[in-house]
Amino acid sequence: MSINLTILGCHSATPRVNAHPTSQFLDINNRAFLIDCGEGTQVQLRKYKLRFTKIQCIFISHLHGDHFYGLIGLISTFMLHKRSQELHIYGPKGLKEVITLQLKLSKTWINFGLYFHELTSKSTELIYEDEKVEVHTIPLKHRIYTNGFFFKEKEGERKLNMAKIVKQDEIDVCDYRNLQLGKDFKKDDGTILKNEALTLPPIPGKSYAFCSDTMYHEDMVPIIKNCDLLYHETTFLKDKKELAKTTMHSTAFEAGTIAKMADAKKLIIGHFSSRYSNLNDFKQEAQEVFENTELANAGKEFVV
Amino acid sequence: MSINLTILGCHSATPRVNAHPTSQFLDINNRAFLIDCGEGTQVQLRKYKLRFTKIQCIFISHLHGDHFYGLIGLISTFMLHKRSQELHIYGPKGLKEVITLQLKLSKTWINFGLYFHELTSKSTELIYEDEKVEVHTIPLKHRIYTNGFFFKEKEGERKLNMAKIVKQDEIDVCDYRNLQLGKDFKKDDGTILKNEALTLPPIPGKSYAFCSDTMYHEDMVPIIKNCDLLYHETTFLKDKKELAKTTMHSTAFEAGTIAKMADAKKLIIGHFSSRYSNLNDFKQEAQEVFENTELANAGKEFVV
Repeated sequence: MSINLTILGCHSATPRVNAHPTSQFLDINNRAFLIDCGEGTQVQLRKYKLRFTKIQCIFISHLHGDHFYGLIGLISTFMLHKRSQELHIYGPKGLKEVITLQLKLSKTWINFGLYFHELTSKSTELIYEDEKVEVHTIPLKHRIYTNGFFFKEKEGERKLNMAKIVKQDEIDVCDYRNLQLGKDFKKDDGTILKNEALTLPPIPGKSYAFCSDTMYHEDMVPIIKNCDLLYHETTFLKDKKELAKTTMHSTAFEAGTIAKMADAKKLIIGHFSSRYSNLNDFKQEAQEVFENTELANAGKEFVV
Repeated sequence: MSINLTILGCHSATPRVNAHPTSQFLDINNRAFLIDCGEGTQVQLRKYKLRFTKIQCIFISHLHGDHFYGLIGLISTFMLHKRSQELHIYGPKGLKEVITLQLKLSKTWINFGLYFHELTSKSTELIYEDEKVEVHTIPLKHRIYTNGFFFKEKEGERKLNMAKIVKQDEIDVCDYRNLQLGKDFKKDDGTILKNEALTLPPIPGKSYAFCSDTMYHEDMVPIIKNCDLLYHETTFLKDKKELAKTTMHSTAFEAGTIAKMADAKKLIIGHFSSRYSNLNDFKQEAQEVFENTELANAGKEFVV
């Protein structure tokens, strides 16, 4: 069980030579996910030698250009590479229309399964689930309909406590599976041995919460509570608190506050406005409330 | 009068770390034009420090992604920069729909005049004209509706031949303007002095022909005849002549042939397929028929 996050871009608004718009590559339990896809994302994926042809799902937070203008190009590249694996795209309503229109105009026929899962709910919902991972939306508060995404490894199976098990003659190897699944053991005389007495708790699943773009919005806290890793946007510093409100973005101090309220283990900040030249100011400001803060940076990896 | 062309990208299909899709910045008589706009074009414009906010017109050859996926991002950047100058976009029908849909989805309102001039004609047509420059389409032969563009400086005014003029007492300073405009001079006694006897020919206007993407297509020759500079795509070498035909692209040899037939002064080749590692092979092959051939390369400038 592991979460490995690579930042591909972490700047707001327009792409520049060394400032790429939002995108992140998430390897969670060997699933390859892409989160947001600003212009130039496919080049960043190549630059950091990520196995981007393995991407199974793409999660798009909202339909501002710096979060999805690279998507059509990436899909086109998948086609040129003769992809056969299915691709699932989760994002706001409208995304399917804009992508299919562009494919239609170029008279391009998709040669793999391309599935859009359009989001419209304003409450958190489970949008992806397999045997080991689930993804929930985190409704955010921005100028247009926006979701963050909460990625969570499912709890594994309980571990056999062999020291205890070997003392019980009646327990056979073929009973182990039931114990791992959490079931109690019934002896021949009818006595019940509680599962907790024979097994150890599973390794808890790790979690990652991605929250961009949003103004300060405490409603997200219960959804992301106790996450191992939290990415929260910090477009501005406190000096532009009013501008943050008007444009519905957050300050570094506000991101730190959310991380603290959520009892996150680590906070990553990004989506920096181009008006700031010293990004360390963002880190310092967030650390006024939440010490374990790190700056996002293209190519930087975070392992949980 | 001058033509200054900067290559921004000259590779086919998918953008890679050091291989950018088609885009060119053309400064013709102080007009700033952009030709095609693959993904990442705005970053290339910044990288080469081109005054891209001055771009007046954008010409899109066709709606394959490697020629226009960077357009929506560039328009968005113009908006963020609070552009006020009009922007005119020339390209195939459908372009307006796809751009406006994306602006609508992001709830973005354009704060400058954005005009689409959608092209549908299969014959060459004059699509832009001002007092010094004109632009004609060059119908090309590709998998979807495609135009090249022929940029031409208008001929300037005739030059006064002062050595001849001073010998004619009746010609006054206030007659000079008519002479520059090509008019004859009528003396008091009714004698006509022919304009050619009093003036010298104007400096001829320069021209640039942009032809991408297309298969070998001789029909373009009369339109681009005698051009000073010709860009012609060369996706393949002769070894893939059949593939060039199937995909409706050209070989370097074919590009050289077109340049020769058109009596172009110089040929630039680009739109290289990623399957070739040694681009000099393209130059050599084109030079089998047309000696004055140069390879396109991002950042390279061509001055006429």
